[in-house]
Amino acid sequence: MQAEEILKQHLAKTISLTDEQFAYVASHFKQQSYKKGQAIISEGDKVDHEYFVLSGCLKSFFINDDVKMYILQFAMPTWWASDYNALYNQTRATINLDCITDAEVLSISNADREKLCNELHPVEHFFRWRTNKGFVASQKRLLSFMNNDAKKRYEELMTLYPALYNMVPKHLIAAYLGVSRETLSRLYHS
Amino acid sequence: MQAEEILKQHLAKTISLTDEQFAYVASHFKQQSYKKGQAIISEGDKVDHEYFVLSGCLKSFFINDDVKMYILQFAMPTWWASDYNALYNQTRATINLDCITDAEVLSISNADREKLCNELHPVEHFFRWRTNKGFVASQKRLLSFMNNDAKKRYEELMTLYPALYNMVPKHLIAAYLGVSRETLSRLYHS
Repeated sequence: MQAEEILKQHLAKTISLTDEQFAYVASHFKQQSYKKGQAIISEGDKVDHEYFVLSGCLKSFFINDDVKMYILQFAMPTWWASDYNALYNQTRATINLDCITDAEVLSISNADREKLCNELHPVEHFFRWRTNKGFVASQKRLLSFMNNDAKKRYEELMTLYPALYNMVPKHLIAAYLGVSRETLSRLYHS
Repeated sequence: MQAEEILKQHLAKTISLTDEQFAYVASHFKQQSYKKGQAIISEGDKVDHEYFVLSGCLKSFFINDDVKMYILQFAMPTWWASDYNALYNQTRATINLDCITDAEVLSISNADREKLCNELHPVEHFFRWRTNKGFVASQKRLLSFMNNDAKKRYEELMTLYPALYNMVPKHLIAAYLGVSRETLSRLYHS
């Protein structure tokens, strides 16, 4: 499917735009290709864009003071990703975003998103609901971290993203759950 | 200060409304008083409203499978609180919201917020940015949970909410940080 068609179908789940409006919105996005392992955002970067995934899988992650990697989010097709703290507050990146597989994305700048939201009320509605869903997912992730039961968290993850099991190496699933590979191995064999 | 004036000043930081538009928006909020310790949302409740804090301090919290309490968020004056997962997805509450002190709030229903966002583009803009900020705060909270350094997390919390130290009992600050009272005591005496 063409990139614009994927974006069009994605927006149409939440808002109605005329063909002319959609073409105008789409003209603010830029298609980009990344290779497996390639960094999109690195800690310390200036962050000006957010990314809509067309194909492949991204991960946003954080390396803590003990040099342990934690995964904040996987981003699969039609998911959005960025360092939103850095993007919205115009500060330097505190997290990393890179590619688990080869990936195609559409990027839009912070300034262009704000311009479109101001010009087209339905676009503002779309982005409000996009962030509402992101906020709720983030709160759920926090609750899952607070709940000690690793088995339950593993099952929640597999229900939320069934495609993940085959798409993502096991050590990255362990880094998302905050458990060791050995613990993860016990979970998916039980 | 009158409740409406607090809401007016809060909205005016992000959007411009005419006096007539503001009066219309304000007419959808309802003022409510709660006593210290009183529950606003309990696990299992149907959730139809969100709450804008006028005075006092609320906490949203979660009891895990080991009956350990974790605090998701403190909500001080001009902060918003609800179980947003339950509110947006029209499911039952999975977290609790109650009052650390006596509190005055303005409540608005899910349906009324959506109606106002649809009728007034600036109101949709306001709520998009309100959620953007909540999303970023939630991501920061997640990063703070992933980072092992309890001392750094304590300092971040005190920078973020300086009023908290005097307003909130120490065992609740410990429950927010996910540390024991003994560890917390070492942190604030060091």
